Amino acid sequence: MFFGKKKWDPQGKHCYVTGGSTGLGLALSILLATKGAHVTIVARTENKLQAALKEIEAARQYPEQQFRYHSFALDTADASAQAIQAECDANGGRAPDAFFLCAGSARPSFFIEETEATMLNGMESAYWIQAWSALAATKKLVQQKQKGNIVFVGSVVSFMSFIGYSSYSPGKHALKGLAETLRSELLLYGIDVHIFFPPTMKTPGYEIEMQTKPAVQKKIEETDDGITPEQGAAAIIKGVEKGQHQIAADLITNLFRSSSRGSAPMNHLFLDQIYDIITWIATPIWRRGVDKSILAHRKEHEEYLTKQGFFSKST
Amino acid sequence: MFFGKKKWDPQGKHCYVTGGSTGLGLALSILLATKGAHVTIVARTENKLQAALKEIEAARQYPEQQFRYHSFALDTADASAQAIQAECDANGGRAPDAFFLCAGSARPSFFIEETEATMLNGMESAYWIQAWSALAATKKLVQQKQKGNIVFVGSVVSFMSFIGYSSYSPGKHALKGLAETLRSELLLYGIDVHIFFPPTMKTPGYEIEMQTKPAVQKKIEETDDGITPEQGAAAIIKGVEKGQHQIAADLITNLFRSSSRGSAPMNHLFLDQIYDIITWIATPIWRRGVDKSILAHRKEHEEYLTKQGFFSKST
Repeated sequence: MFFGKKKWDPQGKHCYVTGGSTGLGLALSILLATKGAHVTIVARTENKLQAALKEIEAARQYPEQQFRYHSFALDTADASAQAIQAECDANGGRAPDAFFLCAGSARPSFFIEETEATMLNGMESAYWIQAWSALAATKKLVQQKQKGNIVFVGSVVSFMSFIGYSSYSPGKHALKGLAETLRSELLLYGIDVHIFFPPTMKTPGYEIEMQTKPAVQKKIEETDDGITPEQGAAAIIKGVEKGQHQIAADLITNLFRSSSRGSAPMNHLFLDQIYDIITWIATPIWRRGVDKSILAHRKEHEEYLTKQGFFSKST
Repeated sequence: MFFGKKKWDPQGKHCYVTGGSTGLGLALSILLATKGAHVTIVARTENKLQAALKEIEAARQYPEQQFRYHSFALDTADASAQAIQAECDANGGRAPDAFFLCAGSARPSFFIEETEATMLNGMESAYWIQAWSALAATKKLVQQKQKGNIVFVGSVVSFMSFIGYSSYSPGKHALKGLAETLRSELLLYGIDVHIFFPPTMKTPGYEIEMQTKPAVQKKIEETDDGITPEQGAAAIIKGVEKGQHQIAADLITNLFRSSSRGSAPMNHLFLDQIYDIITWIATPIWRRGVDKSILAHRKEHEEYLTKQGFFSKST
């Protein structure tokens, strides 16, 4: 590592990318293709997959490079296992070398407007959609006695959270917990586990997220410029190449990562300590500002709830 | 706070305790009764609730003190709302002042032996069983324009994780994420949110947990003596009295809490920094030891899987 030796190289590897037809998954698939990997994308909608495959094809490096797609919903364990089986079948029975689990979405809302269905949906799109693929991938790799890499996509709200993320942040926290468990447990099989924590990322999913995001939450996030899907994809590959368990792409995420270490290995011995020390001062200042915005929003929020008829309906 | 002023006092408060018939929930209910609170316990099994109520009754401080139970399964949003409604009905329509969400359980296992059903069950007993009560409690308190306290029970594996906890740690991480979201969001309504992170606790639930715990995981945890439910209950009350958001009862949890701060407020300005600095050295040493134990277990584990027929069955 001190001499820049890569722990992983995409060249010639079979890479399986969920959510590969759009946003971060597509940017990552294109970058993997550029770096000489075989790329298989999995998503729900066939025409989006076809369009994405054309973009990946444009990044082809050599004639033998394989690009394919499989159309599957990944919201159950069975469907996720079937998608991986379809890929194995297409590749002479062999499992992919690396699984990049980019599928997922968020739907911010006030907690008191959540229902059983919206909370369950939140957990499904933030957590299960990746957990099921990880479960099927692990079983397949172990059964074939094959090593490999599993890469989750969390969020900066895997480490921390605030107003509006009650259906999303728990799932992204769960993903950090799963990744940390598996980093430890899959040592048994030589499977390396990584998790990328993007900040705000300007993807098609982000546009949908903005439609339900409460105004007070938008105000708190307004200074957050975020990163592009291409920057996110580059960060993932760099992190996996370096063998990092937790991967971050920007300063804010590195600050929260370094001050929310759990039992995860760190990335830079000294830099991470500096990040950690900064947060001792920066996080309380940030939190007080956010708390103040929320308290200032009380009256407007009560008027909003009254207008929605919240106080007159039965719970 | 500098002069020891309590931010919360159980005396005369209506306290609603889920999982109150056994373990931590029962110990907490007894302690709340001793401190002059009205106590309502909620759990599934009627005869356990009756037996628990007798123990709580023995802690009575004054004749008007109210003790009751309601028998409900709390694994759906509807049932959790019905349980809270039953308590409101029994108290002239008024919602409880404080909700202590102690219901939950763990079932450790190797990840590759998990199924869709066991993973979903894990999330239900680690997360949803508390999240549904929190959702119903919040709606009820806001609708009645009543302030209050919501207290979750997480785990040390809300902050970190290792082998064996793939169905449990994600749910406990999720609970930390929900608590942190709600600490921020429920400022809108004057509802205070707390979360207690117990280490190993010698409860009836712990005995059940030990039945499925893999040997390698038991070995890693063998030096962990844990705390009693009474110590856990005392820590919760002390933490809520002090107005702490994150509550810990022992050194190990304080170490992981202080080095996994997210955006949560800290408890002690200087002590938490010392804990954090200790973990820069202690956590990597601990993790390397655990990783070594796991690697040393590889051969035995492969023999175990072979014996279970894992390599010959279809995934």
